[in-house]
Amino acid sequence: MSELLVVGSVALDSVETPFGKVQEALGGSATYFSYSASFFTGVHLVATVGEDFPEAHLKLLEDRGVEIGGLQTSRGRTFRWSGQYGYDLSEAKTLETQLNVFAEFRPVLGEGLGRTPFLFLANIDPELQLDVLCQMKERPRLVALDTMNFWIQGKREALRRVLAEVDVVTVNDGEARQLASEPNLIRAARAISTMGPRTVVVKRGEYGALLLTEDRLFFVPAYPLESVYDPTGAGDTFAGGFMGYLAAQDRVDAAAMRRAVVYGSVMASFTVEDFSLKRLTRLTPADINERYMAFHDLIRVEP
Amino acid sequence: MSELLVVGSVALDSVETPFGKVQEALGGSATYFSYSASFFTGVHLVATVGEDFPEAHLKLLEDRGVEIGGLQTSRGRTFRWSGQYGYDLSEAKTLETQLNVFAEFRPVLGEGLGRTPFLFLANIDPELQLDVLCQMKERPRLVALDTMNFWIQGKREALRRVLAEVDVVTVNDGEARQLASEPNLIRAARAISTMGPRTVVVKRGEYGALLLTEDRLFFVPAYPLESVYDPTGAGDTFAGGFMGYLAAQDRVDAAAMRRAVVYGSVMASFTVEDFSLKRLTRLTPADINERYMAFHDLIRVEP
Repeated sequence: MSELLVVGSVALDSVETPFGKVQEALGGSATYFSYSASFFTGVHLVATVGEDFPEAHLKLLEDRGVEIGGLQTSRGRTFRWSGQYGYDLSEAKTLETQLNVFAEFRPVLGEGLGRTPFLFLANIDPELQLDVLCQMKERPRLVALDTMNFWIQGKREALRRVLAEVDVVTVNDGEARQLASEPNLIRAARAISTMGPRTVVVKRGEYGALLLTEDRLFFVPAYPLESVYDPTGAGDTFAGGFMGYLAAQDRVDAAAMRRAVVYGSVMASFTVEDFSLKRLTRLTPADINERYMAFHDLIRVEP
Repeated sequence: MSELLVVGSVALDSVETPFGKVQEALGGSATYFSYSASFFTGVHLVATVGEDFPEAHLKLLEDRGVEIGGLQTSRGRTFRWSGQYGYDLSEAKTLETQLNVFAEFRPVLGEGLGRTPFLFLANIDPELQLDVLCQMKERPRLVALDTMNFWIQGKREALRRVLAEVDVVTVNDGEARQLASEPNLIRAARAISTMGPRTVVVKRGEYGALLLTEDRLFFVPAYPLESVYDPTGAGDTFAGGFMGYLAAQDRVDAAAMRRAVVYGSVMASFTVEDFSLKRLTRLTPADINERYMAFHDLIRVEP
């Protein structure tokens, strides 16, 4: 079992969907990722929050065993995001982004973190992602990176530099097409894999996920939920399950990657069942195993 | 190996997509279905065409071994449909529908067809579908039905009557939601299965297919094609592979149904690679086997 390091954001999210809303709930890429991954292995979180960050949220992470020594408290207010979803839950409309302390975030890997064997560079400025890679004392066994349209458009060159250094990239459909300048998703994934990452994971929301690794494709559907309340954090929760499983198994081969995609899908399927991290805080290992087996049943066909 | 009967339409289609167009090409639900199913088992086609129907199209069906004794030639012109697709190939815009001889179509099951063990009621007026069922001398081992928004809206009562008598229904996402008056696809499929058919197949185009049978769900993705030219006929081709496989195996159990969904997806993936039936006319059993195995590789994960 290997340990896992995530560098990303911790935020306070205000989210409204047709099924309810929350104000200043715990959110952020590193939060969802680390909480999800903590069900599989030891996770270290590097991020920043402001002085106003609620103690109770820290306790929630600590209670799950997330190691938050790398969570800097900076002078100022915590990063805030507010967004809205329509009945088509596939895309959020951002109402407001207050970067606050996140604007000045410079990740610092403290004692020992530079040798963590599994690293997830959550969706932050690709220049910071590069900086984190430079701080690693040893090349991790597996580095995965997430990004978004904002960086693909605004910092394409830095993004290409960091992409050349990572093993896995996770993007959604639109980001894959944008990054590769290619409308066909399969061709887009193949094009991205020529940019550096030998593994490309395309997150397709309610349509599941696509894995391209060693030139072979694997598709997994989304778990067929009867009720979806809030898709916020689904992608980072997916990445947490994916990387958490691989780190726990200490494997990076294609067969393990496929199972990791299923575990990622399992974890994401829980997140969307409630707002913020609420569903995850009620989750048990038995729930995860049960849904993993349900996934198998959903996709199994004897030849 | 059992024989298969399809009752539906034979048409001349004019289709335009961003990748090309065809004028008065061979089309129609019964055409795609029977051509596709003919790779698996013996198929009898019951439909109608006008006096203008090209001899070459009949020959194409006969050359594949489709039994066309039930194809009536009526006075008048053949059913014509013309449609257009944008870059989002998921939905056709109908430009013109000329029912012609199809408006007066009354299916007549000739000698022996009333005992065919596998029956597909392609997308026609549900009153005609009921009439075909009444003409069966023996209850077939498996009856599947396809329908569309036009009948769901305009002939809901007749449709509910025939639904109560069939084993399998094939619909697309939108039709499933409309038929069940339920936005959630999984709940919609469950609701439809309480209307009669113990098996519900939801065709989701580029997002694959969903099978609900014996209260268990199975998902298969669409085959990841790098080029899709024309989605016309994909659903009927799918149904042809699905029913063709089941009839060939003479099985209707859940495990066979899962494989049948994969075979349906295999056949549909070929149809969309060219206009009309062009790709299917170049198809070999080896192509089918190869893509079936590729599908397995695409969805396989060891527990």
